Amino acid sequence: MAETDTRPVVTAFEWVPEFARGLVRDLRVRWALEEIGRPYDSELLNARAPRPEKYLARQPFDQVPAFRDGDLQIFETGAILLYLGEQDERLLAAEGQARWDAIAWLFSALNSVEPFIMRITHYDLFHKDKPWMPEAREAQLPLCRKKLERVAEALAGKEWLAGPFSIADIAMITVLNNLRHTDLVADYPALAAYKARGEARPAYKRALEAQYADFTPEPA
Amino acid sequence: MAETDTRPVVTAFEWVPEFARGLVRDLRVRWALEEIGRPYDSELLNARAPRPEKYLARQPFDQVPAFRDGDLQIFETGAILLYLGEQDERLLAAEGQARWDAIAWLFSALNSVEPFIMRITHYDLFHKDKPWMPEAREAQLPLCRKKLERVAEALAGKEWLAGPFSIADIAMITVLNNLRHTDLVADYPALAAYKARGEARPAYKRALEAQYADFTPEPA
Repeated sequence: MAETDTRPVVTAFEWVPEFARGLVRDLRVRWALEEIGRPYDSELLNARAPRPEKYLARQPFDQVPAFRDGDLQIFETGAILLYLGEQDERLLAAEGQARWDAIAWLFSALNSVEPFIMRITHYDLFHKDKPWMPEAREAQLPLCRKKLERVAEALAGKEWLAGPFSIADIAMITVLNNLRHTDLVADYPALAAYKARGEARPAYKRALEAQYADFTPEPA
Repeated sequence: MAETDTRPVVTAFEWVPEFARGLVRDLRVRWALEEIGRPYDSELLNARAPRPEKYLARQPFDQVPAFRDGDLQIFETGAILLYLGEQDERLLAAEGQARWDAIAWLFSALNSVEPFIMRITHYDLFHKDKPWMPEAREAQLPLCRKKLERVAEALAGKEWLAGPFSIADIAMITVLNNLRHTDLVADYPALAAYKARGEARPAYKRALEAQYADFTPEPA
């Protein structure tokens, strides 16, 4: 199934506001591709206008990224990361407990952690001035903190979530970055150190630069 | 890796309040096991007392289910469903576009749909009487509806999300069921019909009965 002779294609946005730069999810896919040194192309979409109707066939939620490798099309960053992981052991162990530990943490990042982080982030970014917001945010905060605490505890004495660096770390570190406008991650030193470790990787830096390089300087 | 001579073990709760019955996530794993006719054992935990410290090594978020198959341990329902899917084509196509379509929809259920449903459900179940709740809920409702609409559209003319019945449907249908206290799913006839189709499967019914049968009749 590996189509190593073709360049995979990742959809991304041609422009997003400052607060979203570095958070758009094509970054996860770019990061994985940079880790294994696989060249790719980005296909840029307009975030401020409806995407072409036919894009829904590639990404039913009308988001980025959608991914194509030869004839194969995949949506959802979790699925794309898993696909890339299955092609290269630098991203995912080929079998056994090590493989399933990384896959379990991949799902954790996206289902047990991200939803609780995004509740806070959505309040902060999109409902900042609503009169009900402070109390609603306060009510959600303990659950978000509990998830962060669990991940921090699981990282005790470990460099990465599931043994060697893996797709689970790409997912978890980019998920945690949605709190970059807060001090929440800093409250858990093991978590902050883990995030810094991931973001210090040359592949992460190249991926981030590539996402920024694709943004047009001005709203078109 | 298949340990078909052993009985896998699924952790579950020995009692949960009425509103949570049929929603606890061990149901997803039970359903998948019932679809392939694989006998399993449940290992019951107390939902109202802290789990033993060592349980965190099996399930770092202190939730159910955790799963064991022979020597292999897996947490996160998404990961467990993927593991079972890889063992039986009745749950997941073995390769190619069909496999990745099902995996993409599995991640969609857990990352693009469930988080937005659970915002509404958490408000309704846990913050019902808070003065800020109605406005906060109202503000989140359009995003939840948008996700439901996308899934309903993707189901147009299709019986299941990714061709034949798969782990994606187990995840999506149990995710949708978190709205059973509302009329939201009924507002999208394609979605309501899809959910009814899944819940009419004998394997679903057996799984649900098994979860209920494990609950003690009275709080201990």
